[in-house]
Amino acid sequence: MSAPRVIALSGGIGGAKLALGLYRLLPEALAVIVNTGDDFEHLGLTICPDVDTALYTLAGLANPELGWGRRDESWTFMRALAELGGETWFRLGDADLALHIERTRRLQAGETLSKVITDVARRLGITAAVLPMSDAPVRTRILTATGELAFQDYFVRRRCEPQITALRFDGAARALPAPAAIAALTSPAAEAIVICPSNPYLSIDPILAVPGFRRLLADSVAPVIAVTPLIGGEAVKGPTAKIMAELGVPTTPAAIAQHYEGLLDGFVLDERDASCARELTVAVHVTDTLMRSLADRERLAREVLAFAAKLPRTRMERG
Amino acid sequence: MSAPRVIALSGGIGGAKLALGLYRLLPEALAVIVNTGDDFEHLGLTICPDVDTALYTLAGLANPELGWGRRDESWTFMRALAELGGETWFRLGDADLALHIERTRRLQAGETLSKVITDVARRLGITAAVLPMSDAPVRTRILTATGELAFQDYFVRRRCEPQITALRFDGAARALPAPAAIAALTSPAAEAIVICPSNPYLSIDPILAVPGFRRLLADSVAPVIAVTPLIGGEAVKGPTAKIMAELGVPTTPAAIAQHYEGLLDGFVLDERDASCARELTVAVHVTDTLMRSLADRERLAREVLAFAAKLPRTRMERG
Repeated sequence: MSAPRVIALSGGIGGAKLALGLYRLLPEALAVIVNTGDDFEHLGLTICPDVDTALYTLAGLANPELGWGRRDESWTFMRALAELGGETWFRLGDADLALHIERTRRLQAGETLSKVITDVARRLGITAAVLPMSDAPVRTRILTATGELAFQDYFVRRRCEPQITALRFDGAARALPAPAAIAALTSPAAEAIVICPSNPYLSIDPILAVPGFRRLLADSVAPVIAVTPLIGGEAVKGPTAKIMAELGVPTTPAAIAQHYEGLLDGFVLDERDASCARELTVAVHVTDTLMRSLADRERLAREVLAFAAKLPRTRMERG
Repeated sequence: MSAPRVIALSGGIGGAKLALGLYRLLPEALAVIVNTGDDFEHLGLTICPDVDTALYTLAGLANPELGWGRRDESWTFMRALAELGGETWFRLGDADLALHIERTRRLQAGETLSKVITDVARRLGITAAVLPMSDAPVRTRILTATGELAFQDYFVRRRCEPQITALRFDGAARALPAPAAIAALTSPAAEAIVICPSNPYLSIDPILAVPGFRRLLADSVAPVIAVTPLIGGEAVKGPTAKIMAELGVPTTPAAIAQHYEGLLDGFVLDERDASCARELTVAVHVTDTLMRSLADRERLAREVLAFAAKLPRTRMERG
């Protein structure tokens, strides 16, 4: 691939939808920098839920019913593991397992996560760059009223039920952005940086917590645009609104834009929230951001890129 | 389980057939001490082919077509691993994988192999004791005319084609018999010790190479009986005859008995080799040793136990 013209920052399912739209428009010129704060060690395997969702989504292998994992999946392993008394709260399909086992083997052999994911992406026929945010482990920790939880304990085992008081990104302070992410963000070829409609707290903040990313975004020649993860005060899927409420933040697009303060040149607002436009201090594009079909993803991606192309560079942190 | 009355020493498929016959007769009073020299680390997992064959066979889960692995197995993992460019020469079914992953996790957490296998056996409803020969790793190495091979490289990847010049059991000298194996062999309740019709070189020798086993067999109150793995100069399955030829040993039951010299009180000879009886220096029982059906397994097991019950204790090493 030549230097990416568009760089997306993404978490799991919601972000991957827009990433897929961008990929359909720019199959050879997209880089997706993916959150690894969700990664965890389970059953002796290193599992990277958001990276894998990005891989499966771009490869056309994602499971449309579950919203995670692979389509045409079988579940024999999980049944046999239950029979042996193993831990089954985190569901792993038989085909999905191949990625976890192969990744774990290669990481233990000393390869970087970036190298493994680049190879897997190529094997799956993906022509975009899928870039874990860092090759160093970063692990999101959820602080709740009743104690601290590892991310997947909160997200999957406890189904996001505990009330969040704060978040911490273990390892982030010692991590560096993945080299290919640095290369993409510093490239003169960059035309747009898109913060996908992922959960700002769970999916984008871990990326921004890695020292360097905020500066890389600020210094890029490309405008930075966030796409709202809220429509009418609710997330399409996931606990974004619930977490904002728990943290005492209004569940509004303006609060999302505020959360990214200093990073953005533009914000894509859902048409159902058009009246909020005046609360925003950056350029706004209003459209239907709900992505049901593949055509929706492509249309939203096209609008985001058109919006980026005409944006003046206004963001505060630019040097 | 109360103290086992019968203790079988076994490798994989051939030995497990007789072990199953014994298990059908004595579901609550059998211990099977299983070779772990075939064990290996693959894809980051600790795999114990002979132990697993014993488990699946006694649990009624063995794959009758393949002779290894589980019945009603699916192969989604293997297809996905191939897609990712992973190593596929050693085939792992989706359900089988659960055992490897759960075992590896528990070993890495510091549990002994004995403990893990005891728990798995109970989970699978097995009332016999399935005992890995040792909790310390022993790894069979195959010396060939063209170099040394790890066991599974020889057995699976090279399909037993290289010519064997010698065998070595790495780790055996530092290993100890598993505590439950010691307890079974020293129990006053022991009525018979059966060396199953497994490959003497690949399956039984690794057990005997662990310091203590020869003495435990010699000192047991029970008679020791070997069941021939050869019928008419050929093994029912596997490379026993080929290896004997390569090592310059006649492919005869007498040579098998000779191989176990000093350990045996009795030898079970196939009726097709009845004329060899006079070459043997221990008590002989002649019968049809070919096990096609479950009834065959039970009949042979019954004959072996009846033979043991009437055997004078003659073996040389007894103190």
